[in-house]
Amino acid sequence: MKTIHLITPVTTRGLRNLDEIAHLASPVLSFTHSILDRGPPSIECEYDEALAVPDTIVRAIEAERDGADAIIIDCMGDPGLKPAREVVRIPVLGPGETSMHLAAMLGQKFSIVTVLNSVRPMLVNAAKVYGVYEKLASVLVVDIPVLELEHRLGEVQQALAAKALDAVERDGADVIVLGCTGFLGCAAAIEKHLLAAGHDVPVIDPIPATVCVAEAIVKSGLRHSKRTYSVPRSKTIIGFDIPDFK
Amino acid sequence: MKTIHLITPVTTRGLRNLDEIAHLASPVLSFTHSILDRGPPSIECEYDEALAVPDTIVRAIEAERDGADAIIIDCMGDPGLKPAREVVRIPVLGPGETSMHLAAMLGQKFSIVTVLNSVRPMLVNAAKVYGVYEKLASVLVVDIPVLELEHRLGEVQQALAAKALDAVERDGADVIVLGCTGFLGCAAAIEKHLLAAGHDVPVIDPIPATVCVAEAIVKSGLRHSKRTYSVPRSKTIIGFDIPDFK
Amino acid sequence: MKTIHLITPVTTRGLRNLDEIAHLASPVLSFTHSILDRGPPSIECEYDEALAVPDTIVRAIEAERDGADAIIIDCMGDPGLKPAREVVRIPVLGPGETSMHLAAMLGQKFSIVTVLNSVRPMLVNAAKVYGVYEKLASVLVVDIPVLELEHRLGEVQQALAAKALDAVERDGADVIVLGCTGFLGCAAAIEKHLLAAGHDVPVIDPIPATVCVAEAIVKSGLRHSKRTYSVPRSKTIIGFDIPDFK
Amino acid sequence: MKTIHLITPVTTRGLRNLDEIAHLASPVLSFTHSILDRGPPSIECEYDEALAVPDTIVRAIEAERDGADAIIIDCMGDPGLKPAREVVRIPVLGPGETSMHLAAMLGQKFSIVTVLNSVRPMLVNAAKVYGVYEKLASVLVVDIPVLELEHRLGEVQQALAAKALDAVERDGADVIVLGCTGFLGCAAAIEKHLLAAGHDVPVIDPIPATVCVAEAIVKSGLRHSKRTYSVPRSKTIIGFDIPDFK
Amino acid sequence: MKTIHLITPVTTRGLRNLDEIAHLASPVLSFTHSILDRGPPSIECEYDEALAVPDTIVRAIEAERDGADAIIIDCMGDPGLKPAREVVRIPVLGPGETSMHLAAMLGQKFSIVTVLNSVRPMLVNAAKVYGVYEKLASVLVVDIPVLELEHRLGEVQQALAAKALDAVERDGADVIVLGCTGFLGCAAAIEKHLLAAGHDVPVIDPIPATVCVAEAIVKSGLRHSKRTYSVPRSKTIIGFDIPDFK
Amino acid sequence: MKTIHLITPVTTRGLRNLDEIAHLASPVLSFTHSILDRGPPSIECEYDEALAVPDTIVRAIEAERDGADAIIIDCMGDPGLKPAREVVRIPVLGPGETSMHLAAMLGQKFSIVTVLNSVRPMLVNAAKVYGVYEKLASVLVVDIPVLELEHRLGEVQQALAAKALDAVERDGADVIVLGCTGFLGCAAAIEKHLLAAGHDVPVIDPIPATVCVAEAIVKSGLRHSKRTYSVPRSKTIIGFDIPDFK
Repeated sequence: MKTIHLITPVTTRGLRNLDEIAHLASPVLSFTHSILDRGPPSIECEYDEALAVPDTIVRAIEAERDGADAIIIDCMGDPGLKPAREVVRIPVLGPGETSMHLAAMLGQKFSIVTVLNSVRPMLVNAAKVYGVYEKLASVLVVDIPVLELEHRLGEVQQALAAKALDAVERDGADVIVLGCTGFLGCAAAIEKHLLAAGHDVPVIDPIPATVCVAEAIVKSGLRHSKRTYSVPRSKTIIGFDIPDFK
Repeated sequence: MKTIHLITPVTTRGLRNLDEIAHLASPVLSFTHSILDRGPPSIECEYDEALAVPDTIVRAIEAERDGADAIIIDCMGDPGLKPAREVVRIPVLGPGETSMHLAAMLGQKFSIVTVLNSVRPMLVNAAKVYGVYEKLASVLVVDIPVLELEHRLGEVQQALAAKALDAVERDGADVIVLGCTGFLGCAAAIEKHLLAAGHDVPVIDPIPATVCVAEAIVKSGLRHSKRTYSVPRSKTIIGFDIPDFK
Repeated sequence: MKTIHLITPVTTRGLRNLDEIAHLASPVLSFTHSILDRGPPSIECEYDEALAVPDTIVRAIEAERDGADAIIIDCMGDPGLKPAREVVRIPVLGPGETSMHLAAMLGQKFSIVTVLNSVRPMLVNAAKVYGVYEKLASVLVVDIPVLELEHRLGEVQQALAAKALDAVERDGADVIVLGCTGFLGCAAAIEKHLLAAGHDVPVIDPIPATVCVAEAIVKSGLRHSKRTYSVPRSKTIIGFDIPDFK
Repeated sequence: MKTIHLITPVTTRGLRNLDEIAHLASPVLSFTHSILDRGPPSIECEYDEALAVPDTIVRAIEAERDGADAIIIDCMGDPGLKPAREVVRIPVLGPGETSMHLAAMLGQKFSIVTVLNSVRPMLVNAAKVYGVYEKLASVLVVDIPVLELEHRLGEVQQALAAKALDAVERDGADVIVLGCTGFLGCAAAIEKHLLAAGHDVPVIDPIPATVCVAEAIVKSGLRHSKRTYSVPRSKTIIGFDIPDFK
Repeated sequence: MKTIHLITPVTTRGLRNLDEIAHLASPVLSFTHSILDRGPPSIECEYDEALAVPDTIVRAIEAERDGADAIIIDCMGDPGLKPAREVVRIPVLGPGETSMHLAAMLGQKFSIVTVLNSVRPMLVNAAKVYGVYEKLASVLVVDIPVLELEHRLGEVQQALAAKALDAVERDGADVIVLGCTGFLGCAAAIEKHLLAAGHDVPVIDPIPATVCVAEAIVKSGLRHSKRTYSVPRSKTIIGFDIPDFK
Repeated sequence: MKTIHLITPVTTRGLRNLDEIAHLASPVLSFTHSILDRGPPSIECEYDEALAVPDTIVRAIEAERDGADAIIIDCMGDPGLKPAREVVRIPVLGPGETSMHLAAMLGQKFSIVTVLNSVRPMLVNAAKVYGVYEKLASVLVVDIPVLELEHRLGEVQQALAAKALDAVERDGADVIVLGCTGFLGCAAAIEKHLLAAGHDVPVIDPIPATVCVAEAIVKSGLRHSKRTYSVPRSKTIIGFDIPDFK
């Protein structure tokens, strides 16, 4: 039995429900989940992300200590991805990085459709660091804040479908990546919309896709390179209660 | 139950044995296998690859017709990857593309250690097309032909370990990719060798890793973009007995 | 007297007529020509290209054996370019590679106008491998299949002119490359059309241009690097009747 | 009178002394300084950096409120640079970004000599995001932790000089960037060492250089783009006492 | 007291008036100025630039001999920047290079709005050589020749504002660079225009910005690398009266 | 009969002798030649190049007026290439640009072996502007000034061979480009030296190769794009006696 731990790196209870990925569980795979004690209620810019990272690191250390086999950080900005990889030895995946590499494998160019303009530079910079920038056609936005997604679901789906179509027809995207993990569950409807317009194009729903890739990495026995993600030297941190990680 | 079909794109019987990946099978995953009726005995240059592609396409069409859920082409040159994606609708994966994207996710830079110098331009060009060239530190060779790997296993392992160490210490690699699917099973020994030299660096064994990613893609319900890989227009092909694929 | 051998890598008789390039012959330059015994009737996707390669290799070996001084593969996808370079010592040129490098020398950015959408990823990937991707403004299509070009010539010319104008005015192209060798002879009309719209822009007709560059390479005594294109190791190929090439 | 506020983003008192930059003050330029209440004692990896960011953001907001005209974050990793730019309207500069752009202007290629291997991926990724990666020749390390720099000064200087020489002679660097703000004051000795070896190469001392560029930006009336660094939406942050910034 | 010498690399008297930058002078900074004896009246293409360079080199040598601390070449094409750096030891700055690096530091992507289409390839090539091409969103033109700018000021300002808005809204620019030093003084109006349209975007006025950066470089004690810009070997130049520079 | 005009852009008589390319002439191709009245005796840095350009432009205008069909600028730095293209309508080729594109077509990576370190940044920047930088393995130097090449021929040949071998074995070059047109005639000996060391690698002698490509471009009826190289606007140039070119 392998366990994947999902950290939803915000303080808002109920944003993520494990039921949404329950169909991916199996006799050999289970999920655990945590959110943050301190941090922002949602992540929509560099500032939000910065405040989400310290507690994300804590959750990662706890998850490894509690026996998780892999960790997924449940936000397309992949907050804390790199420091978390430094403090644990189990694989840590971000849906941003994972979806972009999957998209690169499924077609020639991909576009990301996300929530707000303030997220665009973050995703573009991430694509540069992850090494897939050349395959990024565009980043488009539906202009709806994260915490309103749930209550404006119809509007969200329509906007996503419209922007995905723009991405394909105007920007030349061959694959669509949903650019916020809050869009979970919307992929099929967008695929259908694109198909009706004549475009047989896959739409990547980041969390389910990342769960499956995390399982693949665990099953292959792979892990992150400690040459890239060295264990931090011991030092006295003030004001953060970080559990031991050595 | 999902089935992954492995095409070993050469005419040499016995090069690939499903026992080598049997530990990846499960109650929900089985494997089938085929080799080529016509083509080269091994793939070590563009010429070999070119002659492997027509029958690889045939095997891909047959595999989809026979119910496979995904196809893996068992060679780091990914021969026939793109045309096979055009003629089937199930995911087709190449260990070259898959390993390079995994490597890009596991560390800052990766190196590939392969068989012969004649393979180097092929892998470098592949990295450019796949979009991960910027993360490729180097391609090194052990200078042993594919069909001699089995009989010179000790020598192969030593050479792989030595070249992997060069890749890390001289070229700055953080992750090693075994550059020939004939190296299956050698990863653990190389990891140990690198660790003994002070480098905690993952070594990707392409076939097991690609099997796990293929399973992940099937489980996520993803597939290749038909906008990149359009179904070929019907036309009369002379001299090749290609099964119907529409 | 030097001889350039043109391989039209399809099985359709009459698509290429040496008369079309007769004006480039001279007392010191003659042409020979061959088509394929097996392969596709035209090349419009990766699948077609894959099936054209084996016999293209055969034709290349025969051409060298028969005394050719250089070989041109008569298709913008450059099918078999790399394996053919491995099996012969005379220069082998593809109109795709040659036209793109010429275009890069004649202006700041170039666009390619080709037949069908299914060809676009092939040309974009080729530009990446050839090293000129940064100078590629766009790839546009007239949406007419290769085998209909001849019968819809007026329509083809109009569509080419319109798309070339789009490439210049919208995508910023400074040079146009005709993206199918079946467009032979259309360049002058398009140049005129662009000039009438105020754009003094060269249009590259790939086959004549490649013939002239091939002659230049022969005259300079240059050839392809055997460090990139090594002679394949001897091995028993099954199902293809490849002539000896060592 | 303009004021530049320097945030040394660690909790260690006394690491930075304004005397070190006093010669850059003038009747029209003064400096103020702060360190962190909570965070790491020094920054040597992603983990350290992550924990330095929240309080760096607080310091930035306070500095703007207290009338600073520009802010410099005193660490080559530029921790908190992007979120700080979101929460204030005055220019915020990082010595990492500033030094790399200056280096790009002073010569063809530059190398960075920094403290530890764990910092290398951070600086390389920064170069990609800042857009100057193509001009980066190499990142070398002296392998001495930040908090030991002061006590091992002779050793530090020797190691810096030796690595700078390697960067020039082996990696082709034309400009050297000191890769830790703790190296302040070492540039002149290294320049002399390089000159003695025949290399007339500038060595950038990041903090003085960034102070001068910050003054230049203030004097020009420039500021960061709010299209890249949008003001964060109001939301309830838990566990961090962030001052109002609207 | 430091002195910055401005070379306006044209023969037209009165194009540049030091009053325009007088507000940047101070008790510790003064300006001197020169124009060319021979060369073009304005610079709008490679040909103009080529003829401006010899006398620009002469002016640079004279300026250093006369005690200048830094030199600025007053044209966005940076004519003579590289040769001038070879013949003097004081810093030589071009507003093209300087503005592009500043723009890269102030936002994610920048656009340049310049005079004529003939200048576009020059600026794009410059961005490639300077290493900031990836951050360049677009180059737009107002289609007004340099020598008419003064007399058509209203029209110029309107066109600049309109093109800057296009750059932001259509091309995704986060920062605007005025692409001709003849636009000096227009930045504030364009910023206001963009703000009225909802875009809080900095507009870089190249000459004031470059003056401030030159002062910063002088103050930091930095200079150009003699490993990139070697002193030319002594040789007999015919037809140009170049002052001694060794 | 077509005529190619060679401009040797220096004032030194006798450096170039048309006999060296006489074997490339034919009943349909003849050569004419000019040198400069004013400029440097040889070109070894940006300063030399800058002073060579004005008279190179004059020679280009004269050559077109005198009926030349194409112009070659006889220096690897391609001085005046771009302005000359603006003032004439016949093709103007530089051996730097032409050799780099040919090299890119003949193998995976190429290296340039040139005279002096001061030339290296110029060639690297040229590769960036020409769009072939990704295929450039390295630039090496023999450290012998241009005007001594003739008198130290044995030494030159040995140094070229040694550096070419370094380029292949250490830097991974598959093709060698001679990086100074003063090396004319040395290619065959270097190829032999490399072959003796086991490397079957082409060595490009820039002037003969560029002559042949120029002939190819003339024969194809191609020319440079006037969208990239616009005709300069009429204006009064002071101090240069430029012939009319409209």
